[in-house]
Amino acid sequence: MAASVTDYLHAHRERIVAELIEFAGIPSVSTDSTYADGMAAAAQWVATQLANAGIRQVQILPTARHPVVYGEWLGAPGAPTLLVYGHYDVQPPDPLDAWQSPPFAPQIREERLYARGVSDDKGPMLIPLKVAEAYLATAGRLPVNVKFLFEGEEEIGSPSLEPFIVAHKALLAADYALSADGAMWRVDLPSITVASRGMAGLEFTLSGAAKDLHSGRHGGAVANALHAMAELVASLHTPDGRVAVAGFYDDAVDLTDTERAALAALPFDDADYLAQTGAPATFGEPGYTTLERMWARPTLEINGIWGGYQGEGSKTVIPSTAHAKLTCRLVPDQDPAEITAKVARHLETHTPAGVRLTIRHDHHEALPYRLPADHAGLRIAAQVLAELYTVAPVQVRMGGTLPVSELFQRLLGIYTVFFSFSTADEDFHAPNEFFRLDRLEDGLIAWARFWELAGAQE
Amino acid sequence: MAASVTDYLHAHRERIVAELIEFAGIPSVSTDSTYADGMAAAAQWVATQLANAGIRQVQILPTARHPVVYGEWLGAPGAPTLLVYGHYDVQPPDPLDAWQSPPFAPQIREERLYARGVSDDKGPMLIPLKVAEAYLATAGRLPVNVKFLFEGEEEIGSPSLEPFIVAHKALLAADYALSADGAMWRVDLPSITVASRGMAGLEFTLSGAAKDLHSGRHGGAVANALHAMAELVASLHTPDGRVAVAGFYDDAVDLTDTERAALAALPFDDADYLAQTGAPATFGEPGYTTLERMWARPTLEINGIWGGYQGEGSKTVIPSTAHAKLTCRLVPDQDPAEITAKVARHLETHTPAGVRLTIRHDHHEALPYRLPADHAGLRIAAQVLAELYTVAPVQVRMGGTLPVSELFQRLLGIYTVFFSFSTADEDFHAPNEFFRLDRLEDGLIAWARFWELAGAQE
Repeated sequence: MAASVTDYLHAHRERIVAELIEFAGIPSVSTDSTYADGMAAAAQWVATQLANAGIRQVQILPTARHPVVYGEWLGAPGAPTLLVYGHYDVQPPDPLDAWQSPPFAPQIREERLYARGVSDDKGPMLIPLKVAEAYLATAGRLPVNVKFLFEGEEEIGSPSLEPFIVAHKALLAADYALSADGAMWRVDLPSITVASRGMAGLEFTLSGAAKDLHSGRHGGAVANALHAMAELVASLHTPDGRVAVAGFYDDAVDLTDTERAALAALPFDDADYLAQTGAPATFGEPGYTTLERMWARPTLEINGIWGGYQGEGSKTVIPSTAHAKLTCRLVPDQDPAEITAKVARHLETHTPAGVRLTIRHDHHEALPYRLPADHAGLRIAAQVLAELYTVAPVQVRMGGTLPVSELFQRLLGIYTVFFSFSTADEDFHAPNEFFRLDRLEDGLIAWARFWELAGAQE
Repeated sequence: MAASVTDYLHAHRERIVAELIEFAGIPSVSTDSTYADGMAAAAQWVATQLANAGIRQVQILPTARHPVVYGEWLGAPGAPTLLVYGHYDVQPPDPLDAWQSPPFAPQIREERLYARGVSDDKGPMLIPLKVAEAYLATAGRLPVNVKFLFEGEEEIGSPSLEPFIVAHKALLAADYALSADGAMWRVDLPSITVASRGMAGLEFTLSGAAKDLHSGRHGGAVANALHAMAELVASLHTPDGRVAVAGFYDDAVDLTDTERAALAALPFDDADYLAQTGAPATFGEPGYTTLERMWARPTLEINGIWGGYQGEGSKTVIPSTAHAKLTCRLVPDQDPAEITAKVARHLETHTPAGVRLTIRHDHHEALPYRLPADHAGLRIAAQVLAELYTVAPVQVRMGGTLPVSELFQRLLGIYTVFFSFSTADEDFHAPNEFFRLDRLEDGLIAWARFWELAGAQE
């Protein structure tokens, strides 16, 4: 990469840290309307930074709640277009008295910057902004085309993002997304998140008699909806933990031997995990390690059951209705609608005698996500991290759903490469959130190099 | 029976109805302290009636809440001693606007007296009182020894009755109890209740991880407490409805062919029952009719299950704990403590992998109850009803627990003969409760005859 870009970034290190301190000092808590001024100030701060860096078309675009800050630089014909994603909103700072320094008065201690939102996502999202500034200040151009999308609702579940993307499909068109959000798995191990699980869910009810019956007067005569529920829920898994719904695993792409070897090489220890969670034992689909089950195998979980009497003491009723909530975590190539249909069919065919089944679909569906192994962005990210840390990065997965990558894939048809320089241990969502300042520096160099390599691809 | 007793009862019919109207006009609602004056007035009314009838040792005996009214006449040496039971408290009258006439302003419509408590239990309990008056006014003596025990807490579960009986064992000693409470099964079919089921229960919890885990991040790694609960609860029954706890049926005395034939002869129709309860089908232990299962077979019911998320929408947790409440209905000769131990052993040995079991015993135990087929009181009751209605009465059972008979059996070692002249359709516990006035007359004649026959037995 042009030496002048790294030189520029090194030379301006102090100012960049000062700017991050300024940015992190703005209380942009998206969930709490008493911070409305902070949210507006943060959006304005980001827009000003973009404009000052030389980014074009900078706009603060309104949504139903908090605006999206957009900007673009499209002066590299023939080079790919990257959609750079980040968010300027932060979690609430409570409990305030657990903070060593005030959450919105950033403080550096031992080469860490402490403040709410500094790791999630203000530090990481400032990186591409400063890299753009460095390229434009030194070379007068970027090696790639870049569109910046910084939202203000990530910490409240991005409710406006889907309608925003739908309304701005052409504006956001890109070859792939490069996310400044996300986090590396372990501080001593460079990693790239390449997959997340999808979701499907429904709620169901079993009904027997028209109302709860006295278990003395009626006990023995009619079905107990909770017995039927237990039987039905128990039928969803084999006793050893495999999902027993017919066809559930049909479309689940199994791990390759290479992938299994890679996962096995990761530093994950069952005993540590049990100590962390307090569970007496690991449990799940036989034939897979705990990490494989969490990251790369689908699951079906009952999230809640209720029926009958739950208060103090006893009440001798035969419950007439029993309810359950169910969600599945999906892996490629499982389709949420198909899985929901298979689960519904299982419930219908396994409903015990004496009760009626009602199913309510909850439409919280998300596709499973997997960045292809040969994706250009993944290859570049791996090369950059290997150069920077002199060790090949590991590929990790998310057991949960990554809403942004799911939205980009579903609505824009593009993959997302996660390239964040925060680390999972930096207490985001907790008091004393911090960002490692050496990671800020790593990130600046890495993003500059990423863009250089991306621009050089034919 | 002495013609003069029946003559007396006939001659005083109008006055007796007027006295019942006066008694039913006293608002003796035991559960609501705003009716404290009504409770005190009702106890005083009963005591005055007993004293005016010529009963001795009439006392209003305090308990922790509402007093017991006691009286005795023990002037028949050699004749049996009967403990006559009834209660002067009534259910709350709500909802008031559903009453055609005010609940405490008794009104006669079509030979029915409408008022709260008139069927449960003021009408029925007035009968033995008036029969005693008739005998003492005409013959100057009763054919049997009688002890009256009228409580004021039946409608709130008789909390003071057990300590009261324990404190007055000698005072209450008798050959058997004759209860004015209870109700005949059907108005067109004279019946005698000869059995009720006992009860045993416990509560249990299954725990996995130390707290609910995110089903995305952790799904597949550890056991879901609700899955384990479903599996454990499902293991308590066979799919066709038999209790699967080892030894559960060991001590359950099976119905004899004669008993089964008697039950089969009763007017009970599954289709009617389903229409009443709204259940789609009858269900329970194979090999028995619905009535047999409700009255004469033990059951194990889950009365409540809860765990995980129960609110609106979905929350993708792996629940760490799941709870269940369980009660059993028992038949002779099942022992509540032994059944509880067997159920606990089943839970312990069937707890699925990955969770821990905790059991809490709730001590709501009651012995099953069965009046022996050759009991003197049962023979007399059957003879009296056969004479009165010119059809042999049927023997019916209660699926529930009859606390009074259980207490008398356990604490005083005596059986209870139920000899009530209310009918199960008289809307006790509902608006527009009524008592059929012809049943008042039937009851007066029947109780007078019962005592005569009991006194004549050698």
